[in-house]
Amino acid sequence: MNYKIALIRGDGIGPEVVGEAVKVLDKVGEKFGHTFTYTDVLMGGCAIDQVGKSYPDGTAEACKACDAVLLGAVGGPKWGHSTDPEKRPETALLSIRKDLGLYANLRPAALRPALADACPLKKETADKGIDLMMVRELTGGIYFGQKERYQTEDRGEEAADRMAYSEKEIERIGRRAFELARLRRKKVASVDKANVLETSRLWRQVMHRLAEEYSDVEYEDVLVDNAAMQLVRNPSQFDVVVTENMFGDILSDEASMITGSIGLLPSASIGDTAPGLYEPIHGSAPDIAGQDKANPIATILSVAMMLRYSFHLADEAQAVEQAVDAVLAEGYRTADIAKAGEKAIGTLEMGRLICQRI
Amino acid sequence: MNYKIALIRGDGIGPEVVGEAVKVLDKVGEKFGHTFTYTDVLMGGCAIDQVGKSYPDGTAEACKACDAVLLGAVGGPKWGHSTDPEKRPETALLSIRKDLGLYANLRPAALRPALADACPLKKETADKGIDLMMVRELTGGIYFGQKERYQTEDRGEEAADRMAYSEKEIERIGRRAFELARLRRKKVASVDKANVLETSRLWRQVMHRLAEEYSDVEYEDVLVDNAAMQLVRNPSQFDVVVTENMFGDILSDEASMITGSIGLLPSASIGDTAPGLYEPIHGSAPDIAGQDKANPIATILSVAMMLRYSFHLADEAQAVEQAVDAVLAEGYRTADIAKAGEKAIGTLEMGRLICQRI
Ligand SMILES: CC(C)[C@H](C(=O)O)[C@@H](O)C(=O)O
Ligand SMILES: CC(C)[C@H](C(=O)O)[C@@H](O)C(=O)O
Repeated sequence: MNYKIALIRGDGIGPEVVGEAVKVLDKVGEKFGHTFTYTDVLMGGCAIDQVGKSYPDGTAEACKACDAVLLGAVGGPKWGHSTDPEKRPETALLSIRKDLGLYANLRPAALRPALADACPLKKETADKGIDLMMVRELTGGIYFGQKERYQTEDRGEEAADRMAYSEKEIERIGRRAFELARLRRKKVASVDKANVLETSRLWRQVMHRLAEEYSDVEYEDVLVDNAAMQLVRNPSQFDVVVTENMFGDILSDEASMITGSIGLLPSASIGDTAPGLYEPIHGSAPDIAGQDKANPIATILSVAMMLRYSFHLADEAQAVEQAVDAVLAEGYRTADIAKAGEKAIGTLEMGRLICQRI
Repeated sequence: MNYKIALIRGDGIGPEVVGEAVKVLDKVGEKFGHTFTYTDVLMGGCAIDQVGKSYPDGTAEACKACDAVLLGAVGGPKWGHSTDPEKRPETALLSIRKDLGLYANLRPAALRPALADACPLKKETADKGIDLMMVRELTGGIYFGQKERYQTEDRGEEAADRMAYSEKEIERIGRRAFELARLRRKKVASVDKANVLETSRLWRQVMHRLAEEYSDVEYEDVLVDNAAMQLVRNPSQFDVVVTENMFGDILSDEASMITGSIGLLPSASIGDTAPGLYEPIHGSAPDIAGQDKANPIATILSVAMMLRYSFHLADEAQAVEQAVDAVLAEGYRTADIAKAGEKAIGTLEMGRLICQRI
C-alpha cells in the first residue's frame, strides 16, 4: 500500500524530530512492504515568518489530500506577543483541529519500564505502574464558543467565553473512549463538573447512556477537581479517562508530567474521516533547536500511533514501539532523559538506533 | 473583645471537627482575653433533611450577623442524586459564597515538617519544601454564568455555560494576591489560558497592570496546563498562585494532594466586608462520621486563619499553628495520617492535646 503523509515540520526542534520519524516510517515501509510518500505543509511560526500568517490558506486542503498528518511542534516565544490572531501559532493548531474534524485527542500517559525512575511520584506509587489513555474532546467546548469583550457601566471592561456541548458531540467522543477501553483494561472514567456546569450535566447524562450500552466496560464519573487529585495520589487506578476540551487540556498535561518524561509521549488527534493528525506532546524547545539535542522518541511513537489508528497496521506500530523500548532498555538516552553522569546521545543517533532495531 | 462566630457544623464529620475547633477558640479566648460566642446555622444535607432545602431562608442573614463563619463540611452521597437544586448541598456552598461576597478563596498548601514524608512526590522534590498559597476567585466565572439547555435540530440536546469576568472582579482578586505576596516571599504566579480564552486575555491585562503597581513583587504568567504540570514537577517554585474560579478549583485540589495530607489543610473565603468563611478543605467523610476518627486539624487551622484574616489576631493565630506543629512533632497522629504500625488517636484526643499546648 501507498500512504500519503503531510509533514508539518513546524518550529524549533520540530524539523529535527520529524526528520527522524520519517526515517522510522521509511524503515517500516522497507521492512513490511509499504510506501510512504510525504508532502511538506507550512504552518506555525515559520509560516508567520514566510507568508505572514500561522495558518496559510490551503493548509487544510493540503492535509486533506493526504492519509495522515505528522506534526513536529508549532510556536515559540518569538511569536508569543502578537495580538493579531493570524500571527499567533495556536490559531493554526485550533484551526486545523476544527477544519479536519479532529474531535478526539488520544494522549497515552504510560511509564516506560526503562524510565520508571523518572516518575516524579514516590517509588511505591510508580511501582504500581501508570498506563492510562486520556481521551480529550478537541473541537468543542469553551475553546470554540463565542467570545465577547465589551464595556460595562460600573465594572470596567468585561470579557466572556461560552462553553457549549451537544449530545452529538458528547456521544461521538464517548464512543471513542468506550471502544478504546474494550481494547485495553475495559475501564472508563468520565471527568466532568456536573455539580456546577450544565454542559457537564448533559455530558454525564450521555455518558451514562453509553455506559449502559457498553455494559462490559466498567464506568465511573469523576469530578474534575477530584481527578486532578487522583492523578497524583494513585494514577494506576485509571485506564481510559474521557473528558471535555478544557479539562482535557489540563488533566492530560498533568498526567503526562506524572510519567516524568514529556519527551517520550505521543498523541493522536482523530475524527471520523481521514486524515488524523499525530504529534509529540512536547513543545518546540527553541533553546535547543538545531543542536542535535532533541529527543525524537515522542515523534517516533506518534508515528506508531499513526500506523495503528490511521492505517490499521498494528504489527508495524508494535514494531516501532518495541524498537523504542529496546533502545531505552539498552541504556541509550537523549539529554532530556539522561541522569546526572549518564552520557547522552543526539537526535540523529537516537533515530538511527531505533531504525536499526525495527 | 467579643467575637461572634456562626457555626455551620454541617454533615458527616463536620460536627465533630467543628466541636474541637470551638474548644481551641475557647482556649485562645481564655489565654489571650477574648470572648467568642457562637450561633448555630443550619446548612447542607442536614438542612435538606430538616427543612427540605440545603440553603434555608435566612442563612445569609444569620451569618451576616456574625463576625466570621466556621464551616465543618457539607454534603455526602446521601444527597447526591436529587436534580432539584434546592435539594443539593453544593447549592448552599455556591449561594453562601455569592451572598456573603466571598470572592477570595485562600488555600495554603504547605508541607508541615513533621509530615513531609506523606508527600506523594519523590523525596528530592519534597525536600525542597512546598509552601504556596492558592488564591482562587470564588464568586465569578463559569460557576455563576448563565446556563442553558435547549433542543437543536441536528445535534440533539445542547447545553451551555457562560464564563464572564469584569476588570473590577479581576482587579480585586489580583490585589489580594499581590498584598498576600508582600507578606510572604513576594512572588505571584497568575494562571490563565490567554492563548484561548477572552476572559483570560482580560485577566492577564489587568494582572499586568497590577504587576507594574506592585513592582516589588516578582510576577509571572503561567498557562493553566503548564501550571498543572509545574505543581507536580517543582511545586517549590510557587509562592502565591492566583487564578479564576474553575482553574482554581482544579489546581487548588491538585496542590493540596501534593502535600499528601488533605486532613491538615484549611481554607479561608473572604470578601471586602465581614464575615469571612473558614473551612477545612476535606469533605464530610460520612464513612467515618460519629466514630471519633476524623482529623480535626484542618478545621483547627481554619480557625487560625479566621484569627489572622477576620480578627487580625496574628499572635493568636500563630499560637494555634504552633500548637498543631508541636503535637505533630511529638508524634501524635489521627488515623488518616498515621503510618502503618503507628498508633492513631481520636478526634477528641487530638483536639485536647492541641488545646493543651496553646
Ligand atoms: C496551544 C494550545 C492552544 C493547545 C491547547 O490548549 O489545546 C495546547 O495546550 C495543547 O494542548 O495542544
Ligand atoms: C462542591 C463544589 C461546588 C465546590 C466547588 O467546585 O467550588 C468544591 O469543589 C470546592 O472547591 O469548594
